[in-house]
Amino acid sequence: MRLTPATELEHRYKKLQHHMAAQGLDAVIILQNADLFYFTGTIQNGNLYIPVEGEPVYMVRKDLMRARMECGLKNVVPFGSMKDIPSVLAAHGYPLPASIGMELDVLPVNFFARYEKVFPEARFRDATPIVRKVRMIKSHYEIHLLQDAAEQVDRVNRRVRDVLREGMTDLDLAAELEYVARKEGHQGLVRMRAFNGVMFFGHVFSGTDAAVPTYVDTPLGGMGLSTSFSQGAGYKRIERNEPVIVDFAGCCDGYLVDQTRIFAIGHLSDRMKKGYDDMLKIQARMMELVPERPSWGLIYEECLALAFKLGYADTFMGNKGAQVSFIGHGLGVEIDEYPFIAKGFDDMVLEPGMAFAFEPKVVFVGEGAVGIENTFYLTESGLKQLTFSSEELTIL
Amino acid sequence: MRLTPATELEHRYKKLQHHMAAQGLDAVIILQNADLFYFTGTIQNGNLYIPVEGEPVYMVRKDLMRARMECGLKNVVPFGSMKDIPSVLAAHGYPLPASIGMELDVLPVNFFARYEKVFPEARFRDATPIVRKVRMIKSHYEIHLLQDAAEQVDRVNRRVRDVLREGMTDLDLAAELEYVARKEGHQGLVRMRAFNGVMFFGHVFSGTDAAVPTYVDTPLGGMGLSTSFSQGAGYKRIERNEPVIVDFAGCCDGYLVDQTRIFAIGHLSDRMKKGYDDMLKIQARMMELVPERPSWGLIYEECLALAFKLGYADTFMGNKGAQVSFIGHGLGVEIDEYPFIAKGFDDMVLEPGMAFAFEPKVVFVGEGAVGIENTFYLTESGLKQLTFSSEELTIL
Repeated sequence: MRLTPATELEHRYKKLQHHMAAQGLDAVIILQNADLFYFTGTIQNGNLYIPVEGEPVYMVRKDLMRARMECGLKNVVPFGSMKDIPSVLAAHGYPLPASIGMELDVLPVNFFARYEKVFPEARFRDATPIVRKVRMIKSHYEIHLLQDAAEQVDRVNRRVRDVLREGMTDLDLAAELEYVARKEGHQGLVRMRAFNGVMFFGHVFSGTDAAVPTYVDTPLGGMGLSTSFSQGAGYKRIERNEPVIVDFAGCCDGYLVDQTRIFAIGHLSDRMKKGYDDMLKIQARMMELVPERPSWGLIYEECLALAFKLGYADTFMGNKGAQVSFIGHGLGVEIDEYPFIAKGFDDMVLEPGMAFAFEPKVVFVGEGAVGIENTFYLTESGLKQLTFSSEELTIL
Repeated sequence: MRLTPATELEHRYKKLQHHMAAQGLDAVIILQNADLFYFTGTIQNGNLYIPVEGEPVYMVRKDLMRARMECGLKNVVPFGSMKDIPSVLAAHGYPLPASIGMELDVLPVNFFARYEKVFPEARFRDATPIVRKVRMIKSHYEIHLLQDAAEQVDRVNRRVRDVLREGMTDLDLAAELEYVARKEGHQGLVRMRAFNGVMFFGHVFSGTDAAVPTYVDTPLGGMGLSTSFSQGAGYKRIERNEPVIVDFAGCCDGYLVDQTRIFAIGHLSDRMKKGYDDMLKIQARMMELVPERPSWGLIYEECLALAFKLGYADTFMGNKGAQVSFIGHGLGVEIDEYPFIAKGFDDMVLEPGMAFAFEPKVVFVGEGAVGIENTFYLTESGLKQLTFSSEELTIL
């Protein structure tokens, strides 16, 4: 179990303070698990108060001892009641903030109202855009965690060859792979920031079931096991000559990578094989564009144009009516971080330290889906690929 | 895969409309996955508009076809943009509502703000208390789902005997049990309503690790695999003569039950065995109190008093400083539903149809923890137990 180094935490909150100063925020209060983990190294229940200058104060309700063991910040203090917050701040020499940033994209209305009462004079603003901007740039420490997660997802992927059998269900295959992931230290959770966003390891499905659309903001949906969670693996039996999609999120010490590979028993039709090769071409196009350093929005547009040119206007990134408006997404502690390789992200430029998954996929209605997904990151010297499982179609 | 019957959905929204009328709400808008599943039978992305009188309108962004297949409501209509909501309502003969209930305990601030813009004249109130009251009373259909989940968790529990070995880690054991659960149709997700509340199947841990407190609102915590998700199974090796706790949530077609059983290799100390017997006594006390129909708050107080009398003032439901203020919790689609058998629930009376888990547990610091958990429901003729695995300590 790694503990986030204190120097790492300091670097993170100082970057946030830089953005806060630029935006005129006196303080940011962090409450949500993923952000707490990023800025404190733990997720013990409490408030992290980050002033625009000076050291943060982590006020912990439960469990204080554990927060003190796991968190490398200097000020980890007990937290009893909301109304004590001003006196805790005063004790650390911090005045009442006039403008406060909070995570308004994830914070429930009732929860937020309690902070409005504690700071009746303050103006509140959404801090999530700057939190996301800080989290978007990964440190060397974080890249190492992503590399470990890439090793894990490769071990999961290599297991497919051993267990994939005609007649097993998508669920049977998913269960085998989840078992490997857990034994390799996957925490189970795949954190997603979007409201109602939820995922379970990823999506493992075959043939027609991969082409079933659903609510989730992913190119492929899946039937799932029930209408309560209608995505991913269901009870479809895996047959010969159809693509089996293993879209799996590896997770090491809280850090996620995303990878998709295609398998089949028997053979795949020429149309499917061409579809797969075309998705590789779109991946290659992205890799070609990165050194030119356009915006993520422009990379999206260029890759989308190539998909259209290759004949997939109605089937790229989902079937017509269920197509998603991205080809890739940042990731780290959450599966949906900045940057998005998506429509409208024309202002978001490429920066060293960005980590992202790129996942061109195409649906063949009533037949299945194929595609590729890898996790990458940017350095000063160019694009590096984190996930590394063989990109050959695995035909058993 | 079961589809929630249309009659069931009708019964549910009519009960909600009854509460809405009593509270003077013209409409409730349902957005959160668990509530959507309960009131529509699916969780396709959209808004469910429930007027105080008349049939609900489910406006679906994605995936509409799938919502139409899975949802038994009459009005399942396409949904493009927020600003279209008033015209959709008008098309169904509904005027603009003056007072609107929304799920303010889970709805993010930014998300809610969009609805305030669509209905600038409306007063908004928290609809969650009445939603929870409706969901609290289970139908025969729902009890059948809970029974299936109880069968599933028993199959998971029976597997422990086959796989538990000295020297395996808590994670190894957890992975084996999760594998069984998945093969038996567990969706993976264990839905929790509380902000930042998250759980993965349950908690499987041994000896000292079971006594480690953490942020989560459960009597036992656990080390977990990393500080990113510091609860449940970690890398501790299972030794002889220490309690192994299998606290596992079964899940069938979206419905959860919760069960805890204790295992050991070798033997358990007399102190541990007495602790376990005492927890059974507290369970028996609850069962004795139910026919008297006091409030849930009073059942909590009586059972807590018995725990004190048995000598567990500082160790019941967590170690001193980390004790939780409940002994049981309602459950169904979420693991934290009404009723709570908790401090302060003096106004919440016992009603037929309530389903709940009751989990008296005691911590022995530096040694481990023991306890029992079962899921029950109330009928006109009394208390029925849903989970049914043997309550004998399993000593291998």
